[in-house]
Amino acid sequence: MTPNTPWIGRTSALSFPPIADVNRLAAEAEAAGVDVISLGQALLGLPPPETALAAVRRYLDAGGSHGYSPDPGLPTLREAIADHLRRRKRIPGATASSVLVTCGANQAFLNTLLAITHPGDEMITFGPGYFDHDFAVSLAGCRGVEVGMPLVDGRFRFEPDAVAAAITPRTRAVVVVSPGNPTGAVADRATLLALLDLCRSRGLWLVSDETYDLLTFAPVEHVSAASLPGAERVVVLGSFSKVFALAGWRIGYLHGAPDLVSEALKVQDAAVVCAPVASQHAALGALSDADAFVARARAELTARRDALLEALAAWGGVEPVAPEGSTFLMARLLHRTDDVDLAFDLVRRAGVATVPGTAFGPRGAGWLRFSFGNQPPARIREALDRIRIACAGDAPRSAS
Amino acid sequence: MTPNTPWIGRTSALSFPPIADVNRLAAEAEAAGVDVISLGQALLGLPPPETALAAVRRYLDAGGSHGYSPDPGLPTLREAIADHLRRRKRIPGATASSVLVTCGANQAFLNTLLAITHPGDEMITFGPGYFDHDFAVSLAGCRGVEVGMPLVDGRFRFEPDAVAAAITPRTRAVVVVSPGNPTGAVADRATLLALLDLCRSRGLWLVSDETYDLLTFAPVEHVSAASLPGAERVVVLGSFSKVFALAGWRIGYLHGAPDLVSEALKVQDAAVVCAPVASQHAALGALSDADAFVARARAELTARRDALLEALAAWGGVEPVAPEGSTFLMARLLHRTDDVDLAFDLVRRAGVATVPGTAFGPRGAGWLRFSFGNQPPARIREALDRIRIACAGDAPRSAS
Repeated sequence: MTPNTPWIGRTSALSFPPIADVNRLAAEAEAAGVDVISLGQALLGLPPPETALAAVRRYLDAGGSHGYSPDPGLPTLREAIADHLRRRKRIPGATASSVLVTCGANQAFLNTLLAITHPGDEMITFGPGYFDHDFAVSLAGCRGVEVGMPLVDGRFRFEPDAVAAAITPRTRAVVVVSPGNPTGAVADRATLLALLDLCRSRGLWLVSDETYDLLTFAPVEHVSAASLPGAERVVVLGSFSKVFALAGWRIGYLHGAPDLVSEALKVQDAAVVCAPVASQHAALGALSDADAFVARARAELTARRDALLEALAAWGGVEPVAPEGSTFLMARLLHRTDDVDLAFDLVRRAGVATVPGTAFGPRGAGWLRFSFGNQPPARIREALDRIRIACAGDAPRSAS
Repeated sequence: MTPNTPWIGRTSALSFPPIADVNRLAAEAEAAGVDVISLGQALLGLPPPETALAAVRRYLDAGGSHGYSPDPGLPTLREAIADHLRRRKRIPGATASSVLVTCGANQAFLNTLLAITHPGDEMITFGPGYFDHDFAVSLAGCRGVEVGMPLVDGRFRFEPDAVAAAITPRTRAVVVVSPGNPTGAVADRATLLALLDLCRSRGLWLVSDETYDLLTFAPVEHVSAASLPGAERVVVLGSFSKVFALAGWRIGYLHGAPDLVSEALKVQDAAVVCAPVASQHAALGALSDADAFVARARAELTARRDALLEALAAWGGVEPVAPEGSTFLMARLLHRTDDVDLAFDLVRRAGVATVPGTAFGPRGAGWLRFSFGNQPPARIREALDRIRIACAGDAPRSAS
């Protein structure tokens, strides 16, 4: 490097985090006095479980020094997560030693990615898809190979045949996010079996990001890829951010084979040492009364989803795809073509934040992601009222 | 990848975290009923500032949902850190927007490393040195080029001439850890000026890990590399883990130029989204009464260092190098040669955990790192009493 070469390296190939863009615009609007309604960030906007906060209070009250936990997490939490995986996700092989506690599911992905790849390797992902995975793949010096999710009978599908066609000698893993971000699509058991079978026959890891696992809408139920037979080379990424409304605490985990866990631990140590200890206590507290909280979260989330679907239908400017799970949905633009332009307009003219579909890759172009998890139904209806008024001048596309 | 190729990628080139090894051995001894005294982990074993815990309690009591903070951190915390940098570290250019709040100083290093390098680039480090930096460099697909720290007049030295000799066209940065881990060496102003001058003339970043910054021993005072004139391409890595005894909260920061901060933010989003919000409140609380806490920490730490130096002299099995800062020191083995073997023996025969010098690279062979920050003076004396008895049979090396 000489003084005339650029100061920035691999990140120069990445765009800025799109959520940050939306947040910045919204913050500008708020600074100008607008009461912005966020249908942007994928949050479950409920207070966390009381048992989670009580556990943190006990940690604070215990006194003494506040050192690191063991790198892989508090033994009690690893055991509690393993129990959670066995009972609620039907993963029979989960044990304390198959679990590594991380600083959120993104960090679980980074740990896994760096453990299983060499620079130049390929990771197969589905699109439209979760941008942070694509960013991490680039940062690792790897190549993301995106497979499209066709819309069939009103559902985004994970297509094993398309994955098979994308495999090369450099492929290391197939990454499935189910419930999907931004699609809200849930991979059913037959699909997961086909993907796992493919991975097994080709010697690939199946990395299953199950961040929104328990947040599905009846009658759809989540199936964990690690609950299937022959799941030795499945890595599950999990999170307390969404299901337990603990996003700010940055606490998640991965579950996998012994060699994966011990290699991921090397990344963990170099990257963050261990997950924040207070957050680990929060997670322990959340798991101590999980069923009651999850039932309440699902009921509230269903009401919010229904409110959004109804209000979007009343507007008529987009065509939503009803999600099978998650805290958001994708909606196709009917009157306009540029999703970034529309998302910016919605902030400026309606005071409503959404995420433009192109944030999730080229297959998201012409779509918007609306999050319903973070707002009560009345607020969702207000947001769509505002949008309807602000976009009243948009003609149907066929008439323009 | 075919089914017969290895399942593990780049991490297979890394050894396991040495601290984890020591912890595991110590845990085994404890399980066998031994009251292990840890002179291993580099902690400040004091309760965190009351103001830090009070700030977390206020966050818990405030109710509402616990979402993410903005990716770069709470605006109030970024401002408070900038104020801290200006007042206590004499960094005139520090502003809220030059600060990115991270999940500890390791994550600040990873953010910086991935922002400034391409795979294949080189990072110059000093050895014996901080192993997690070496691990991160490897994980990033880069090459660490280690420059030795000669021991001159009883001090480990950072040698600008040796750095100059190690620069190649692939070099992107020089990484200085001061106070140094494991050496406890503090780079003085003249040394830092020479290193900065070298970096400027060769177009390199100077990455200054100042994790232990305020923990120096009078009359030595820490000098921040960013306090020097011409520090535009200096990145400071900072931590609340040691100086404010908040290790378990995983909270740190980086300070740098606008382009570095915005590129590091891309890594941050993909890796952890944002630092844990409760931990950010803890940091804010700590900064609200920093001077009193730091004064108390320095006094206590000085007493612990003095106790260790005295007890090591009474033993006579090692020759310590008095640290200028940090919470530990390096001591050269006098009666034996294999530091790993001795460290294991000390756990097994004396119930005392230390870190073998080879954990810090080949230049640490024949040394042990003793941490004094985590134990009160009486406990340090007890540890060395036990060691003296356990090693009574070790002959002076010249007589063997």
